Amino acid sequence: MNEQYLQTLGQQAKQASFALANLSSTQKSTLLNAIASSLTAAADEIVAANEQDVAAAKAAGLNQAMIDRLLLNHERLSGVIADIDNVVGLPDPIGREFDSRLLENGMRLCRRSVPLGVIGVIYEARPNVTVDIAVLALKTGNAVILRGGKETLNSNMAIAKVIRAAVASCGLPEDAVQLIDNPDRSLVTGLLKLDSYVDMIVPRGGDKLQRLCAEQATIPVILGGIGICHMYVDKAAELERSTDVIINAKVQRPTVCNALDTVLVHEAVAADYLPTLAAALTAQGVKLVGCEATSKLLPAYDIEAATDESFSTEWLSLTIGIKIVADIDAAIAHIRQFSSGHSEAILTDDIAAATHFMNEVNSAAVYLNASTRFTDGGQFGLGAEVAVSTQKLHARGPMGLEALTTYKWLAVGDYTARS
Amino acid sequence: MNEQYLQTLGQQAKQASFALANLSSTQKSTLLNAIASSLTAAADEIVAANEQDVAAAKAAGLNQAMIDRLLLNHERLSGVIADIDNVVGLPDPIGREFDSRLLENGMRLCRRSVPLGVIGVIYEARPNVTVDIAVLALKTGNAVILRGGKETLNSNMAIAKVIRAAVASCGLPEDAVQLIDNPDRSLVTGLLKLDSYVDMIVPRGGDKLQRLCAEQATIPVILGGIGICHMYVDKAAELERSTDVIINAKVQRPTVCNALDTVLVHEAVAADYLPTLAAALTAQGVKLVGCEATSKLLPAYDIEAATDESFSTEWLSLTIGIKIVADIDAAIAHIRQFSSGHSEAILTDDIAAATHFMNEVNSAAVYLNASTRFTDGGQFGLGAEVAVSTQKLHARGPMGLEALTTYKWLAVGDYTARS
Repeated sequence: MNEQYLQTLGQQAKQASFALANLSSTQKSTLLNAIASSLTAAADEIVAANEQDVAAAKAAGLNQAMIDRLLLNHERLSGVIADIDNVVGLPDPIGREFDSRLLENGMRLCRRSVPLGVIGVIYEARPNVTVDIAVLALKTGNAVILRGGKETLNSNMAIAKVIRAAVASCGLPEDAVQLIDNPDRSLVTGLLKLDSYVDMIVPRGGDKLQRLCAEQATIPVILGGIGICHMYVDKAAELERSTDVIINAKVQRPTVCNALDTVLVHEAVAADYLPTLAAALTAQGVKLVGCEATSKLLPAYDIEAATDESFSTEWLSLTIGIKIVADIDAAIAHIRQFSSGHSEAILTDDIAAATHFMNEVNSAAVYLNASTRFTDGGQFGLGAEVAVSTQKLHARGPMGLEALTTYKWLAVGDYTARS
Repeated sequence: MNEQYLQTLGQQAKQASFALANLSSTQKSTLLNAIASSLTAAADEIVAANEQDVAAAKAAGLNQAMIDRLLLNHERLSGVIADIDNVVGLPDPIGREFDSRLLENGMRLCRRSVPLGVIGVIYEARPNVTVDIAVLALKTGNAVILRGGKETLNSNMAIAKVIRAAVASCGLPEDAVQLIDNPDRSLVTGLLKLDSYVDMIVPRGGDKLQRLCAEQATIPVILGGIGICHMYVDKAAELERSTDVIINAKVQRPTVCNALDTVLVHEAVAADYLPTLAAALTAQGVKLVGCEATSKLLPAYDIEAATDESFSTEWLSLTIGIKIVADIDAAIAHIRQFSSGHSEAILTDDIAAATHFMNEVNSAAVYLNASTRFTDGGQFGLGAEVAVSTQKLHARGPMGLEALTTYKWLAVGDYTARS
């Protein structure tokens, strides 16, 4: 039964994608504006549905952080709707022609950017994602199948209903946006194998979800959002200013993927610098997990012994790993071993060291003298963020609208045959 | 044991990839020239190894087409080595910086093209692929793990030995190129799950191999090389010239993925045109598989009845499907249902029809008045061809050197924290 349900969902999405693929930029703006207006008009219904979800979450004893994530009150909903305006204002990435050339046989060849077709997005209990992703998909002429967390099912159903009606009001197929409204987990595995209809899967969630997608999907998946991020304090770093950057990277928003996980400190400055850094970190409530040499240098602190396992952990909390390294190459070797390929930084005033680090470290984002917290579509000026990719194909790092497009080759001949 | 073997292979490839990633274009040219010289010097050994494979294939009763595919005599080997020169001459796609911008906070941001890292390529019994892929991987600074068909194991081992020695002679790690020299099939499945080390899998083979990779891989896979290609003869087509293009697309090399599989004919010209077309096709030995209306129009021909299954078949032989369609939208609908997303063409002198078809048909390559046989890296001017992708992520259609690269974001601040 689930099989048939998913097949139908896929067919409907594919069919809808044909109607979306060649909309003009103006038509897409009209559509997004209609969605914004409809969401505004339906705000009471949506907030009421969310209240049901929040009440159920409280009754189920979910923790405060979870409940905060799934909360969608009037203020937050207004923010989400305001973001639609921003997306309307972004350049339309579809229909761009590039690499045009006239071949020797007289055939004219170019590539044209086109929508991917159908995108499947699997995400956790954040109802704002339902709006964000639907809007980004439609802006790029894609149909989308959404699968949100079961904790926000009522919110998501209310939002999807409004969006689908808005799509229909513009004379477009409402199946451009479909929500899997059955919490059965086998539907996730089924969606991952719907390769006749779905062109890309974006999992927005933790390690377990990413792994499930990597293992089960027969559709290309954009893995991402897991950041074991490193910052290397070189012997030529300005130490006082380094502390500000490290605190920013670790403390500003510890629960996100671009937050700092491990500091690597050149041994030439470790004795001088670590006491200052440790004081600054602990003053912010950060727990220290250090290598043996770190513990020796900081006898006054309660430092947990670091292991390969702790260096492989994305903390997502006020914990930080500290390791003293013999030199920059030891720092690079550590990063190559433990990084998830998300964001790494070097702090130094030595141009040779900076160049070496930026050449040799191959993560999605590599920083010189800046916080890893910048790895974000908004901060990078992409105007929107679909996800942060930590794989190397198709899109890397913050994914903007461009990541929801592909291209086709167009060739114009004069009844031209290959000789 | 296989598990450990593959882990070691993966680790070695990853380690080698670090040494390759920042080679200059000159260093890479020197490397490729060394490989070309070494292959030339070892031609006798390689041809002798290939003779063993050919003898074994004959003893095993393989058909002539198979034996021809795996044959690597002195002449063919010279051609393969000459192709290395062409690759040396191509622009180096690595190290290009693009999308540079100065952000409002003073941070400078750009993207830089970098190698993917480690590429796994699984292919059938064509020993030339061993050279081609190794050379393209090294040109783009990637390490490669090769898994060829068991029928050419001796040839591949001889070639890999020479290439690895040439790599070492340039002071680079020989594990930049590794060949899985054990025909055990479980090594293929194991390779597909080596996601800690391998960044991309390229399967070059038939439907079964593609399906195995889609289902088993936990690594991103570039599916491709399966072409159910269509040509639509519009009512406004120049019919005589259309025949030449159709014959070219079907007959020139029927065993390849860009060969034509199905002709769709507008019903307004079917009665006039089909007798001419059928005569031309059968004169070339092409077998006709037609819809009911086609059979009625061609009573003099022995036409097999077309089914959904036959329209879903990539013929790879001198067989062609023929269907009469009511109009251009019926042609587009047929293509959407049966195409593998490889190559489609319209033949027409009507600009409106041409535009409609090229907008609405979303395959990797869409042609106006040209043969589908042009879907090829060489024909498209890419200078090389890794494979032909029929999926939409990362690379679409003929994959040149660019498809073996990714990018990283580089950001330079002044101890910049996110506010």
